[in-house]
Order: sequence, then structure tokens, then C-alpha cells
Amino acid sequence: MNRYPGLFITLEGGEGAGKSTAAKGLAELLRAEGHEVLATREPGGTKGAEAIRALLLGTETPLHPLAQTMLHFAARADHVETVLRPALERGAIVICDRFYDSTMAYQGYAQGVGVEVVDSLIRLIDLVPDLSFFLRVSEDVAKARLVTRAGATDRYESMGEDFTAKLMRGFEAIAAKEPGRCLWVNSSGTPKEVVAQLRQLIAERAGR
Amino acid sequence: MNRYPGLFITLEGGEGAGKSTAAKGLAELLRAEGHEVLATREPGGTKGAEAIRALLLGTETPLHPLAQTMLHFAARADHVETVLRPALERGAIVICDRFYDSTMAYQGYAQGVGVEVVDSLIRLIDLVPDLSFFLRVSEDVAKARLVTRAGATDRYESMGEDFTAKLMRGFEAIAAKEPGRCLWVNSSGTPKEVVAQLRQLIAERAGR
Repeated sequence: MNRYPGLFITLEGGEGAGKSTAAKGLAELLRAEGHEVLATREPGGTKGAEAIRALLLGTETPLHPLAQTMLHFAARADHVETVLRPALERGAIVICDRFYDSTMAYQGYAQGVGVEVVDSLIRLIDLVPDLSFFLRVSEDVAKARLVTRAGATDRYESMGEDFTAKLMRGFEAIAAKEPGRCLWVNSSGTPKEVVAQLRQLIAERAGR
Repeated sequence: MNRYPGLFITLEGGEGAGKSTAAKGLAELLRAEGHEVLATREPGGTKGAEAIRALLLGTETPLHPLAQTMLHFAARADHVETVLRPALERGAIVICDRFYDSTMAYQGYAQGVGVEVVDSLIRLIDLVPDLSFFLRVSEDVAKARLVTRAGATDRYESMGEDFTAKLMRGFEAIAAKEPGRCLWVNSSGTPKEVVAQLRQLIAERAGR
């Protein structure tokens, strides 16, 4: 639970789980209800963090996994201190497409950087989401969604099936540790169905 | 003391203290004696770390001090894991122009990020220099050196006198905590004099 009047919701999951679509739809629904909503993403959300994103997701610069981990947290620090905290302080609902659970799953678990290293960086960020939705689809649905996407694959989309399996075990371990904050959501349905499910969970779990 | 057969020497100090010149001269002297020497710098030393350096030292992208801190450590992680550790493992003498004491002085002390935050990042890097030379010149000499430098000023050169005073108090606090590793060196003399002084201290303190 964060310590501000606002509500901080994050969406997590592997590539092709439908996070971006769900984030967009959920933001629209909450805005239509009259809430101030900030819809944002990580890595990104500030000029500095978007520059770090370009370096991280690009495939032309080799980066050691620990360096990637710290880059994700550098982008996060800029985003949290200059955008997220001010929005939560003024009472907004913040919907963020990926947050530190992604770094824990991708770098901490799947790339082998380790849980303790990522945990110590999480402590430096000092901002915990109120609710984190872990979106899950079948592998076939995820693959089909990735195939229809435009553009080249990024550093993490091109990691292979073994990586994806480790990643999903990482997300499972994270969710098992914090069942009050981390909720698994089946996102194989239509965007409208997924958004309705998220809206209901927010009402039940956060009373908004 | 590092745990490798190599010797890890860092040069620290404010802008215009003569670190780069001293590093170059010291590397040449040690090579002439027959040592394998790796002369490198931070932020930098790998393709990824140089890309991070460009973002950090450039003045066009605002970055929160905590984000700057984590960027310095991201560059460092890449440099340590892919260049410094392998060089120290094969027994080289590594001379590095700036290392984590600079991040502690600039971000931890002068920019107010705090000693504990930087200390927890230092623990993640897990590589301690054998000797760190803290170069000191009078303010007048430093200013004269900066004036004769070509090119525009970077993010940290343009911080002003109050920042410089905090920075020097930071370096003093660091050196006071680890007097065995951190040695103050007066670098107002000629490059040859400064290098001779460093060479003597390496012989006395590290037996090489």
C-alpha cells in the first residue's frame, strides 16, 4: 500500500500478455467515471527514462545483466520521483504498464541476477504498488499476439522459450510472496472482458 | 583489497585536479617497467557504459539525482563485470580514472542522495580498489586547468562553487573513513612530479 491519497496500479506479465491494451482500456474506463488517471509505462515515462529505455530495449549495445538491472532502476527512479510520486500525492490513479516486478522476473529470476540484488534496489525506490495485476495468457495466444505486432523484436522479446519459462516461474514466485498485492488475471478474453475484470478487482481490493 | 592477483588503483578528485593526466603518465611508467596495465575511466570503459556516460554528462536531458546515481552504477556494473574483473583475474594493474568514490562524493554527498543509498549500491558492485588516490589542487590551479580545456562544460562541471565545496567535503569524509585505501595526493606539481609521487606510494602501500 502506498502512503499517498492516490492509487497505484501496475500491470505485469510476459511479452504478448495484453498489458498495454488492458492499461489503455482501464485508463479510459476510470477517466469516464471521473477519476484523474495517469497512464504510463516502464521503462519510460520521462525524457530521461525514455532515453534509458531506448538503450535497454535496443539490441545493438551489449549490456551485462547487472547493468541492465541498474538501468531499469535508474529509469524507474527518474519516473517515480518526477512523475509517479507527484501524481499519487495529488490523489490520481496511476496505471503503470510494468514496474519493479518485471525487473525482478526478467533480471532477478530469468537472467539470474538474483532476488537479493533486485530487492535491495526495490528498497531504494521506496514506492510499493497498491495492486499489481499479473496478466496471463496461454503461450499460443501470446505468440499469436507477438506475431501480429509491427516492428522489430527488442532485447527481451528475442530471448527464446527457455527464458520465457524462467520468466513465468519468476512471476509465480513473486505473486506467491505477496498474494495481497499481486493478483493473477486471465487475459485471454477480449480487451473489454479483461478491463471489466480488472475494474471489479480494483473495487473489491481497493474500495474505489 | 581486491581478491584477484591484479592490482586495482583508482584516481579521484574534483574537476581540474589532474586525474586524467596523472592516470596516463602512471600507466606509461608502469608499462615501461614491464607491467600489463589497463588504463580506463568511469563512467565508461565499455560500449554500454560509454553510452550511459553520454547521457549522464550531457546537459540536455534532466535526470533526478537518484537516477544519475543508478546510471553511474549501471555503467560501473558493465565495466566491472566485462572489463575490470577479467583484467584483475589475469593479474593486470588496472588504473581507473574515477570509480565509486566519485559517485559517493558527487551524488551521495554533493547532490544529497545520501551515504546509505550509495553504500548499498557499492555492495552490489562488490569490487574494492586496492589504492585510491585523491588528487587535490588549490582552487586557483583547478580553475586555470578548466579554463584551458577545450569543449563545452558537462553536467558536473557547471554546478558552481557551493557544489564544489560540498564535493570536497564529501571526498574528505570518504578518505577519513578508509585511511588505508584512500590517500590524499597534492597534484599541484608537474605531471612528472605527480606520477613519481604515485609510483612511490604504490611501492610503499602495495609492494609493487
